[in-house]
Amino acid sequence: MNDITIKRRIKAIRGQLIKKRIQSLLVTNQANVTYTTGFLGSDSWALITDKTVYLLTDSRYTEQAKNQCPACQIIERNKPMAETVAELVKKLKSIRTITVEKSSSLAAIEALKKHVKPRLKTAANIIEPVRSIKDKSEIAAIRSAARIAAQALKQTFTHIKPGITENELAGRLDFQIRKAAATNSFETIVAFGPNASRPHHQPTARKLKKNDTVLIDFGVKFKGYCCDITRCFIIGRPNPFYKKVYAVVQEAQTAAIKMIKAGVTAKKIDAAAREVIRKIGLPVYGHGTGHGLGLEVHEQPIISANSKAKLQPGMVFTIEPAVYIPGKLGIRIEDDVLVTKTGCKILTRNCQYLPLLPI
Amino acid sequence: MNDITIKRRIKAIRGQLIKKRIQSLLVTNQANVTYTTGFLGSDSWALITDKTVYLLTDSRYTEQAKNQCPACQIIERNKPMAETVAELVKKLKSIRTITVEKSSSLAAIEALKKHVKPRLKTAANIIEPVRSIKDKSEIAAIRSAARIAAQALKQTFTHIKPGITENELAGRLDFQIRKAAATNSFETIVAFGPNASRPHHQPTARKLKKNDTVLIDFGVKFKGYCCDITRCFIIGRPNPFYKKVYAVVQEAQTAAIKMIKAGVTAKKIDAAAREVIRKIGLPVYGHGTGHGLGLEVHEQPIISANSKAKLQPGMVFTIEPAVYIPGKLGIRIEDDVLVTKTGCKILTRNCQYLPLLPI
Repeated sequence: MNDITIKRRIKAIRGQLIKKRIQSLLVTNQANVTYTTGFLGSDSWALITDKTVYLLTDSRYTEQAKNQCPACQIIERNKPMAETVAELVKKLKSIRTITVEKSSSLAAIEALKKHVKPRLKTAANIIEPVRSIKDKSEIAAIRSAARIAAQALKQTFTHIKPGITENELAGRLDFQIRKAAATNSFETIVAFGPNASRPHHQPTARKLKKNDTVLIDFGVKFKGYCCDITRCFIIGRPNPFYKKVYAVVQEAQTAAIKMIKAGVTAKKIDAAAREVIRKIGLPVYGHGTGHGLGLEVHEQPIISANSKAKLQPGMVFTIEPAVYIPGKLGIRIEDDVLVTKTGCKILTRNCQYLPLLPI
Repeated sequence: MNDITIKRRIKAIRGQLIKKRIQSLLVTNQANVTYTTGFLGSDSWALITDKTVYLLTDSRYTEQAKNQCPACQIIERNKPMAETVAELVKKLKSIRTITVEKSSSLAAIEALKKHVKPRLKTAANIIEPVRSIKDKSEIAAIRSAARIAAQALKQTFTHIKPGITENELAGRLDFQIRKAAATNSFETIVAFGPNASRPHHQPTARKLKKNDTVLIDFGVKFKGYCCDITRCFIIGRPNPFYKKVYAVVQEAQTAAIKMIKAGVTAKKIDAAAREVIRKIGLPVYGHGTGHGLGLEVHEQPIISANSKAKLQPGMVFTIEPAVYIPGKLGIRIEDDVLVTKTGCKILTRNCQYLPLLPI
């Protein structure tokens, strides 16, 4: 992450802190730590004061932290986290209160209370709303992740033929991702035939048959940023019912995407997709229509019936309507979109819609 | 997980609850949920009352939960978790207090306080100590994971030659794991040459050279259970200094393993390994000597200088001493051991020590 980007983010976060009268923020959520410092390792916290951002890490990560976080002061800890925080704030003197993220575990907060002298407060949702509006470097990273995903899927096509197992197909796809210097943003889902009716199916030894259907839901993490894509298609002889349902899901996705622009509420987007499926009399999916993504594969905003979010330029999220008929089929189409003032951009456009026809 | 195993675990946990005067336990830690119910999905909680274990999940997982958790009552939620808990306990009537795990986030606990009528208490470390003593099915699963890991590494050997990148080698290894119907228990670490001095190095596009060294730290997750193995070796012309350091690390590991038996303290095991390296004048590693593993790749007991654990039969943990010399080398040897009354068994024995000689 470049230094200027990090400084811009810290400035935005400090703006929030001033607004909410927070003197210093202890960041324990790993994605928030990465956002604030540029650090891509784990098991580390950040302390944001009015002057400095401290990264509290351990010897496994010191070398990496020095490379990735030029804007931060690195503290190498060899004691439990709470004691390290206590020692640091003792040195700093000027800190009267520390605000801890409410996403911290109660155990961590209790340990802090035991060791840390300044008064402890808690607050939720300080960094997450800032994170929900992506900056240029973040959009570029998500675009790169989507490009790698598209390429990896394309390179895997030749292996999609009768006899391959769900496990092997998932493995081949993951291998192409790794080869491109990226990792999975979550465990790849490959589901053949009716297995696709379980939205979070875990790949099995089931083999692809001559006339079969495939659902692949996968994501790439690149420079810390995630994409998330689902594609469905038929092998061999086209199945008319499957094709019909596919067209409905595609229509639902298009309806949602058409609605997207700054100012629209997330629940309107959700309703637009759902309505297409409901109207035709197919079962409506139980999950949300989409979720924000960035450093985490699920983050703000949530695109669902209960969501209170209003779309803003720079938000990035998935649109993934689906139809599930247990024992019969599962079809989900998922793309990642970037909200603009007047509409949206599809970041996963280069991940081609796979042929619905025999391949 | 078979029904009898789950019932035995629930009985042990209920024993803890009675001892600690806990009427009902709300389990939010995902590994604890799996341990208690057999459920291998995510985003789910369990409520243990004196009569029943409830699994609170959502529509993405209902089908899977029904298959994996015959001993539990499945609650499919379509509301936030806290509200679902509130509705359930309202129906049950007899519940006067609910104890929530302290590993829960403060945000989750506050949401529960808002919705749940019975009195809310919190407690730490109820299920974790039970989990630290593995039952037969767990040991079998870890052994299977280790066997798959050994096989996957062996199948990857032919690709370990000059020109391959760290990324590609990691990808090839992961592919073999996937093909064997398993997944990674954590992100595979492959480090060539001096890259190995960063204990948590992330693979890069660096190519393997003619006379080079390799560190591979990887794990397999099978039926929910993890193994964790590190192997180091030389390509091409043997490097005398590397060989010498390797022998010291191996000696340190042997010294620790020899000490292991029920009744010994974890910190004595840690000291035994460290002492071998210190005595010879090489830099002593900054991390612990080992960590428990099972459903999670890091769990109780911790084998470190600060650990208060005492070894008990059935505990499974890693022994992984190392020497890191930044810019020069990193050597770590890691195996997984099972504590017995009189000593220990090495569960990763079939993952051969790779040749230190040219391959």
